[in-house]
Parts: sequence; C-alpha cells; structure tokens
Amino acid sequence: MRCSIGVDIGHTNIRAARVADGVPTEVRKERTDVPGGPESVLEQARRLIAELSGGDRLPVGVGIAGQCDSAQGVLRCGPGFWWPDMPFRDRLSAAVGAPVVLRNDVVMATVGEWKHGAGRGVDDLVCLFVGTGVGGGAVVGGRLLEGASGCGGHFGHVSVQMDGPVCSCGRRGCVEVYAGGSNVEKRARLALDGSVLKEMSGGRPGSITCSMVAEAAERGDESSLRIRDEMAAALSSGVASIINSLNPARVVLGGSVMFGFPELHSMVARGALEQCLRPAADKLTIERSALGDLAGTVGAATMALEFYG
Amino acid sequence: MRCSIGVDIGHTNIRAARVADGVPTEVRKERTDVPGGPESVLEQARRLIAELSGGDRLPVGVGIAGQCDSAQGVLRCGPGFWWPDMPFRDRLSAAVGAPVVLRNDVVMATVGEWKHGAGRGVDDLVCLFVGTGVGGGAVVGGRLLEGASGCGGHFGHVSVQMDGPVCSCGRRGCVEVYAGGSNVEKRARLALDGSVLKEMSGGRPGSITCSMVAEAAERGDESSLRIRDEMAAALSSGVASIINSLNPARVVLGGSVMFGFPELHSMVARGALEQCLRPAADKLTIERSALGDLAGTVGAATMALEFYG
Repeated sequence: MRCSIGVDIGHTNIRAARVADGVPTEVRKERTDVPGGPESVLEQARRLIAELSGGDRLPVGVGIAGQCDSAQGVLRCGPGFWWPDMPFRDRLSAAVGAPVVLRNDVVMATVGEWKHGAGRGVDDLVCLFVGTGVGGGAVVGGRLLEGASGCGGHFGHVSVQMDGPVCSCGRRGCVEVYAGGSNVEKRARLALDGSVLKEMSGGRPGSITCSMVAEAAERGDESSLRIRDEMAAALSSGVASIINSLNPARVVLGGSVMFGFPELHSMVARGALEQCLRPAADKLTIERSALGDLAGTVGAATMALEFYG
Repeated sequence: MRCSIGVDIGHTNIRAARVADGVPTEVRKERTDVPGGPESVLEQARRLIAELSGGDRLPVGVGIAGQCDSAQGVLRCGPGFWWPDMPFRDRLSAAVGAPVVLRNDVVMATVGEWKHGAGRGVDDLVCLFVGTGVGGGAVVGGRLLEGASGCGGHFGHVSVQMDGPVCSCGRRGCVEVYAGGSNVEKRARLALDGSVLKEMSGGRPGSITCSMVAEAAERGDESSLRIRDEMAAALSSGVASIINSLNPARVVLGGSVMFGFPELHSMVARGALEQCLRPAADKLTIERSALGDLAGTVGAATMALEFYG
C-alpha cells in the first residue's frame, strides 16, 4: 500500500486527505483562511499535512484554484488569490519536510478521475468542474495536458459568446461568466423582480446562493429557469468546442454547482453531443464525476506518488 | 537525404510534392476532380504520386480537407467530400505500391510547420489555417494531437457565439462561419447594397471572391471592412479560447484567406493576446505560417517518413 497526502485549496474550503492506493483513508475540511493571506493558507496547509502524515514523511500533492506555474511551483493568480511572488511549493515543502507537487485544482481532479474515477481506462479525457468558478483539465494521448507554462486546461475561460458579459478574466462571454457559481448568484440577484428568490432570500439579495437558485428552478421560477438554461447553453457550447478541439474518448463533468441543479448534467451532455462533430462524438461518452468533492485531493495525492513515490 | 511524397487534397486544389529533408524538390498542383467523385480523386492522387516518385517506391503522406478516421484510413466527411465507406488510404497504398499515412490536411500542415516551419523547436504548438474553411492542428507536450478517433484539432468548429449564424457543421457561431473563405463570400453577397463590391462584381454577386472583399476593404468599403472586422473578432476569440485550453508556446496562423486580408494576421494576434489569460500568454508568440501553401504537402511527406521512413 502506497500512501501520500493530497491537498485541495479552494477559495472557500481547503480539503486534505491521506490517500492509499487511490482511496482516501482520512479526510479534513476547513474554511480556507483567505483573509489571513498566503502565509496563513501556507500554515493551514502545513498543519493539515502534519496531522494527516502522523509522523510519516509522505509525498504531498497540492491543487489550488487558479493559474499555477508548475515549473516554478508558484500560484500566478486565482479567484481572490494573487501570490505571484511566493514560492508556495518550495516553502510548503521546506515546512513539511517532504516533496510537494503543485498544480491547478481541477488539473489535480482530472488526475483523480483519470486514475481512480470516471475517466479510468481512456487515453483522451476532458474534465470540467463547475463550482464557484469553472475549471478544467485534460489527458491527451495518455499524458496529462500541462501546456508550455503549466496552465493548460482552463476550459472555464473558453468564450462561448464574444459579445457576452465581461468575465473576471477580462474577456467576454466565458463559460465561467454564465455557469460559475458566484456569477450565477450575481445573475440571480439582478433578476429578483417577480422571482420566488425575492421571498426565499427574505428580501436580502446578498443571501442568495446557488442552491437557492437551483431550488427555485425546481419550483418552476421563471427567472431561475432562465439562469439554469443559460448555464446549460454555455456549458454545452463550451464542451462541444472542447470536444471538437481535443476529440476525447470521455468527458467527465463534476463540481458542486453542476450537481446542485438536478437536470443540468443531462442537459449539458445532450447539448454537447448534439453540437459536436459526428466523428468526434462517435467514440465519446459523457459521464458524471465519480469522486465528487474528493477528486482534487485524490488526484493530488496520486500525482505526488507518481512524482515522488 | 531522405525522400518521400506529400499530397494535400483540398476541395479546390490538389497539391503533391516530392520532399527531401523537409524541402519540396518538385511540386504539382491541379484542380481537384471533385465532380468525378472519390474514385477520380483517388486516381488523380495515384497519378501525381507515380509521376513524382519516378519509379522509386517512396512513402506517401496524404492530408485531406475533412475529418479523417486515422486508424481506419478513411475520410469520414469534409467540405463536399463524403466517403465514409471508401478505405481511401488502403486503396491508394495498393494503387501506388507504397505505404500511405492519411490525416486531416491542417493536421499535416501542423506537422510541416512544427518540423520545418514557424513552429520549429517548441513542444506545445497550435496551428490555425484560414482558407475555404478554417482548420487546425496542435502539438501537445512534444506529440501531435490526434484524439481518440483521429479527429483532434478542429479549431474551426470552436463556436465563438452560441447564438450566431448556423455553420455547415450544424451548430451556431463557429469560427469558420465568420472567417472561412466560402462564408466570407456568402456574407459579402448578402451585403451588396451601397458596397463597391456591387460594381467590382459587375452586378453578379456569384462572382464575388474573398480577394475582392479584401480589396474592397483596403479601399475603405464599409461593408467589406465590417466583414473583415467580424473575421478578426471571431478568430481572436477562438484563438484566445484555444490558448486558454492548450497553453501553447507558439501559435502559427496561416492560409490563403488569412493572408489575403493584409491587416488580418496582426489584428488576430493582437486580439488573441489581449484576451487570453496572462500566465498562458507569457511564454507565447504568434507567428505567420512559414511554409504557406506547401505546409500540408511538406507535413504529409514528413509524417510519411516518420511512419515508414
């Protein structure tokens, strides 16, 4: 049995797990100490790793929401994170006394699904996770897509509408601007008139969450259904474009927001298959994430073993 | 000196070349016998290969406009081609008495630019060629992107506007519907009122070509400038999405239509760099195709040598 530690640092939560042969044997989850800044998040990761290692010197994989320079081991930017000058990987490695591999969180989740989840057995895989933001990762010809600066797979920033709303990345009409959780909440707050969300939120737009929008859509609320349909349209179009580009054998869709809307996964799978080129679709299946919230930690731990096991 | 034959079968022209160490030593170009159907195109390719081989049994690479199943050696569909039941590669191989490798035409052009052109020396490359249609190809981590069914790299069918005009592939807003030569001509024909194209075409909309639209744009014709600007916007958005997905070290832009509009290449390069994620752009250069019209034949000949040299 080969053990390693996987850490998944999101803007909301930090998850860490001790993983043995792809199976998490012990899991921790805390609020990410974003207000404390990079030093606090580093300390938080160090502590969780130390607790889970229990004195063993286990290799560590870290996935983090944002764009990582994997060669330098640095987080270039992310949602609420901006640590371009902090050598996060090397500082963490020194602090825990073990080797650390650092990648984007959804790239790590892709490794998890590929090796131990819904992407097992294929050489060409695309993963798209819809949470607060929309992230992606891919396997091309049996190897993880890394890209020239370790930033491959940012499928959330495929634009599906060149004259669409402005995304946090600066361009217009990204998949994330339609389907990322925080943008869904923003859109819902701007469409309260005549919506049951007005009542559900007790008149406090700031309290509206994605789950509320999903529930309102289930109850037939028109403005929430419109938001959900726009999510599905943007995700379908983006996924079809990625299929035409990469011709994967499998697409795995995951993320809390993707599964928060009961119909969304099947709408996106159907829409993408209808739109993509036929030969590309012939050998393709679109599946649900098998590892869910733990895909990132399992993948990070798996990659740690591949690099340092 | 290692020789091979490269053949590039487009909907308009078929090009063939004898290539030695990446350099075409003899080149043929004819109108593709599309009206004659697949049997005639097969015979045309056989004859050109025989002429160029001059009695030598040289390995052959064939690039063809459309979606190839590279494992089966079959053209699944293409612009005006639909030969799913013809084992084109194996029939051609039997006819010329030499091994044949078959791929999409722009995938072959990508190999050409990568090994002998503007993409030399990088492990992560994206090529986009704008001609009658818009095709693409990529190198990921030092290996050609093939995909699960040999259909990777169809970047012309990345949609940049999910509610845009319907593309020949059936979906809306593909890069090709805005920037492919035959669509540019169609758009120009629908916008003749008040355009100098009315006069340039002698009142015969059917005679309007991409070159005329480019010339009219140069002369300041408003409707032609609008068409060019839409081409640039669609190409910029598509290229930025591909950069965010694949994080290449280099993007090579080529094709007769791309260079028919004098400003287009720099508009697209600037637009794509402005839109893509910063870390992805840091190590990126956007170049012009170095091999031009011969990228496909050089690439096909190069691939033939790699497979059968």
